[in-house]
Amino acid sequence: MKNKSLVNMPCPVARSLEHVGEWWNILILREALLGVSRFDDFQNHLGIATSTLAKRLNALVESGLLARRQYCEKPPRDEYVITKKGLDFRPVLLTLMQWGNTYYADGEPMIQLVDTQTNQAVDLMLVDRNTQVEIDPQRHQSQPGPAADDMIKARFEASSASAAMPQQGPVDQYLKT
Amino acid sequence: MKNKSLVNMPCPVARSLEHVGEWWNILILREALLGVSRFDDFQNHLGIATSTLAKRLNALVESGLLARRQYCEKPPRDEYVITKKGLDFRPVLLTLMQWGNTYYADGEPMIQLVDTQTNQAVDLMLVDRNTQVEIDPQRHQSQPGPAADDMIKARFEASSASAAMPQQGPVDQYLKT
Repeated sequence: MKNKSLVNMPCPVARSLEHVGEWWNILILREALLGVSRFDDFQNHLGIATSTLAKRLNALVESGLLARRQYCEKPPRDEYVITKKGLDFRPVLLTLMQWGNTYYADGEPMIQLVDTQTNQAVDLMLVDRNTQVEIDPQRHQSQPGPAADDMIKARFEASSASAAMPQQGPVDQYLKT
Repeated sequence: MKNKSLVNMPCPVARSLEHVGEWWNILILREALLGVSRFDDFQNHLGIATSTLAKRLNALVESGLLARRQYCEKPPRDEYVITKKGLDFRPVLLTLMQWGNTYYADGEPMIQLVDTQTNQAVDLMLVDRNTQVEIDPQRHQSQPGPAADDMIKARFEASSASAAMPQQGPVDQYLKT
């Protein structure tokens, strides 16, 4: 199913999904972050149809997450390398990996992030660089930013008035589920 | 386009995408984490078709990210509240929001994470809880975990042998892109 365009939604999450929301895009980025750069390697690792892979790689180049580079002149052959923007997407993949390992690993993880200096598995924690305090839904909340329009402001006023934040009140009992 | 099932892929990222990879799922989770719980509110905020929303909410309940709760007996009405598993997905959404604000905000962000104790915008940083060191692609790398099968091990041996990690060698020039 093709979704309607999310580019015009004011939310940064929605806008990001427009560019990386496709499953294949995320798995291709995962491969690129592991060092894969050649078409055949992407294809072998992902088991993806040639036409789909070509389309997805083009989209990721257009979005600036990958860059195309010729590695062979005769015959002409391109490879796809991660850009700064693509590398900056790594925290999303890492938090997704940690969540997957918590809930879908069936015991021990098959793949994990390792500190190569200590050889210990990493336990990811999200902190605020300004205060070094761990992110906590009670303390750190989404709010309208400087560029928020009236719709966003109204939206957040309504939700704070309804006091329906997931960490409050009767919802707590469900957090054990 | 319906992708093939990712559940049987050994990678935790792929398995997670099976459950949350749909754009709508992620936007519904975003709403639920903001405190939205009622069908009509999800629908108004997202502009999503009734049948699609019903299907997506059911899928998220089945996956255990939301829980269904009756809030009215006559007429019977359910609401959808975030579970512990859904709340644990929050770091993925927050890193996605930060990435979106960096690359798709057109200047100042419309929505941002704020430290309610200081009223300052949060600058997210991913650290290893064990060492308190910031995650760095050079130092913290994905490796086969305890449950890795031979395919995964071979895969990672091949990629470390090819020395094609994105942070090394000629790819660096593309990181400025």
